[in-house]
Amino acid sequence: MGSSGLTVNIDRLIRRMMEMAHLGALPNGGVKRLAASDEDKIGRDLFVKWCIELGFEVRYDEMGSIFAEMKGTRPDLPAILTGSHLDTQPTGGKYDGSLGVLAALEVAQVIKENNFQHERTIAIVCWTNEEGARFSPAMVASGVFAGVFTLDYALSRTDSHGLSLGDELQRIGYKGTLPAVYSRRVKDHQPIQSLNPTGEKFTSYDAFIELHIEQGPVLESEGATVGVVTGVQGIRWYDVDIVGSETHAGPTPMNLRNDPVRKLGRLIQDIYEMAHATGSDARATIGELHASPGSRNTVPGNVRFTVDLRHPDAGKLQEMGQTLTQLCNQIGAVCNEVWYSPPVQFDSRCIDILANSCKKRKLPYRKLVSGAGHDAVYVSKVIPTAMIFIPCKNGLSHNEAEYASPQDIVNGTHVLLDIICELATPKA
Amino acid sequence: MGSSGLTVNIDRLIRRMMEMAHLGALPNGGVKRLAASDEDKIGRDLFVKWCIELGFEVRYDEMGSIFAEMKGTRPDLPAILTGSHLDTQPTGGKYDGSLGVLAALEVAQVIKENNFQHERTIAIVCWTNEEGARFSPAMVASGVFAGVFTLDYALSRTDSHGLSLGDELQRIGYKGTLPAVYSRRVKDHQPIQSLNPTGEKFTSYDAFIELHIEQGPVLESEGATVGVVTGVQGIRWYDVDIVGSETHAGPTPMNLRNDPVRKLGRLIQDIYEMAHATGSDARATIGELHASPGSRNTVPGNVRFTVDLRHPDAGKLQEMGQTLTQLCNQIGAVCNEVWYSPPVQFDSRCIDILANSCKKRKLPYRKLVSGAGHDAVYVSKVIPTAMIFIPCKNGLSHNEAEYASPQDIVNGTHVLLDIICELATPKA
Repeated sequence: MGSSGLTVNIDRLIRRMMEMAHLGALPNGGVKRLAASDEDKIGRDLFVKWCIELGFEVRYDEMGSIFAEMKGTRPDLPAILTGSHLDTQPTGGKYDGSLGVLAALEVAQVIKENNFQHERTIAIVCWTNEEGARFSPAMVASGVFAGVFTLDYALSRTDSHGLSLGDELQRIGYKGTLPAVYSRRVKDHQPIQSLNPTGEKFTSYDAFIELHIEQGPVLESEGATVGVVTGVQGIRWYDVDIVGSETHAGPTPMNLRNDPVRKLGRLIQDIYEMAHATGSDARATIGELHASPGSRNTVPGNVRFTVDLRHPDAGKLQEMGQTLTQLCNQIGAVCNEVWYSPPVQFDSRCIDILANSCKKRKLPYRKLVSGAGHDAVYVSKVIPTAMIFIPCKNGLSHNEAEYASPQDIVNGTHVLLDIICELATPKA
Repeated sequence: MGSSGLTVNIDRLIRRMMEMAHLGALPNGGVKRLAASDEDKIGRDLFVKWCIELGFEVRYDEMGSIFAEMKGTRPDLPAILTGSHLDTQPTGGKYDGSLGVLAALEVAQVIKENNFQHERTIAIVCWTNEEGARFSPAMVASGVFAGVFTLDYALSRTDSHGLSLGDELQRIGYKGTLPAVYSRRVKDHQPIQSLNPTGEKFTSYDAFIELHIEQGPVLESEGATVGVVTGVQGIRWYDVDIVGSETHAGPTPMNLRNDPVRKLGRLIQDIYEMAHATGSDARATIGELHASPGSRNTVPGNVRFTVDLRHPDAGKLQEMGQTLTQLCNQIGAVCNEVWYSPPVQFDSRCIDILANSCKKRKLPYRKLVSGAGHDAVYVSKVIPTAMIFIPCKNGLSHNEAEYASPQDIVNGTHVLLDIICELATPKA
């Protein structure tokens, strides 16, 4: 296994990416294409047009996710799924999401142009509302697909103007009938005659592969050109309260105060030291931090902050949480866990194929764990999944300055091409 | 100099204090008597009634401050001024302000009842809007008196309903004609015939003495029963910004982040250590503290906090500010000074008299520096001034639970009595 021996057309891929980035373009080089907006509609329309021009069958599911299929010689076998999303942050970049969708399209086109024989059908997916910027939560369509959210919950999410995702999908013409829940879609095995003239039943997916920019600085800083993503960090969220006594800044001597900010200084240091001691895979982030009542000449009565702990190993993450709780308790602070998302392990076979492709293509690669959420995280709950990362400049994403070099895009797309070819052509 | 040999009537004083506390009483033992409110009017009316019953002459100045005079044998000499304020915080206590006004009344009554010969006129003042709770800024009438604020500025202050202090004083009948600015009052030397049947001219004040609860825990914690206040802390206010780089909490390893919260931990510790190293008179308060953008899973791009530094010695305070600035600069934080209020030294002769009175009365006393603002701070700019503090339970003030024991009230009032007697009877 390893290289397909095929070559992608980088000019065509970059041209398509820039054409897509033009839809919702912002003055500083970024893109605003919020989920189910007018811009999203014309972005989807363009993608669908390209798919149809290539002869792919296009269907939309109940969540508006687009599935474009290039039939294999054995359409009865589970298909290979690849793709990402086309929606962006309000001041997003040109690469987050679009890369994974349009590289998948390029891969399918190269396979088609080269008459590469593939038994399995190759399906390109564009997931609805990955970003969660307009409709919270993020990754809602892949979440419905994986059975994490119900369809009703997802479609009833509203934006800041009170418009629902379901109504907006209807409005832009992307509310489909294909079951959005994977288990239901597989179970029903329903022939979709109207869209699918061959009449074969929808079966299932053998694997899902998503190519994405890293959205972090690791690959760039280490000189790796491809990231083979082995899984996603587990996350634990905490609320911490340090309660003190509200006191006038003047009359009370320092040693007679119960000043929560004083305790905060030591606690912050201890939290970072705990993360450091856990190793380089550990993350600790204090994102919200606020002193109350917040008066310049009053010793605060309360300091509240959040802690986001991450680690790819569930046991280590649990230890970090226990240490955090102990550190808080030692100074009389209250620490409550408010959310836990366990670590995700991607499929080991897919990971091996990706690593082999990098070796055959002589691309420096690095196995790494994703720190951010992706559609692949939810999809991995129901389909063997892996991800490919490519470097992005200065680790910047969700930012108009987001950038990935053509060379890195070629490298990542070649690795995607290789794994799709291999997975689509099962060895005996 | 020292003790007057006279004794106050503590039952009468406590009875008057409780009668006053009944006006605007709150369910949990506190008082709400906001400046120039209906409650303030009936509180003032009661005080004025008591003054008139004792034969004192009562006048109101342009700021609504009440001046009640008990004539001395030499009304041509500068008078002795004592008093405090009757307005309270929205959930204030029974002692803050009222003690100083009603103890002054008690002192005058004892002097009168004992036919104590005093050459100087003894004047009791009740300053308008000391608290600043309804009309900001605080201590506005004593500020006008001292020339810190203009009369027009002060009278045009509005409450949250847009009502002006001037209009509200007019409404409750306490907008007087006596010049509110001390320098103008002295300069004009105008006879105020209508209110002052003896026809003598208003001269000036020789001293101002204010009795007040400490509003801090020092006296109680050290077993002192009287505080001889030598001055008021200097204050320097700073805004500090630590700028980092906004980053997703997941992808970026800790060592590749520019996390301002991490810097904050060390900086907080350094600031408290700096205050500790400066000595027990130093105060450092971080009252406002906020991380931006304030998202649980984003490394903040910015942490902003305020620092309130206090010290009774101007040089030490300046050193503290310089050290703070250096500490901030060391980690690339920006530190801007936004306000400076120099330390105030009270009158050394008055301080000596107070200390001697405590010794003669065998009262444990302690010299201390006020951390909070008082009318005496502004008055001290134009009249030799000192203050007497008595302990308050648990250092609590601006709180319904505010409490001062009858014994401490007696002690403080005796010291006030002694100094008024001494100042009102000049030695040759």
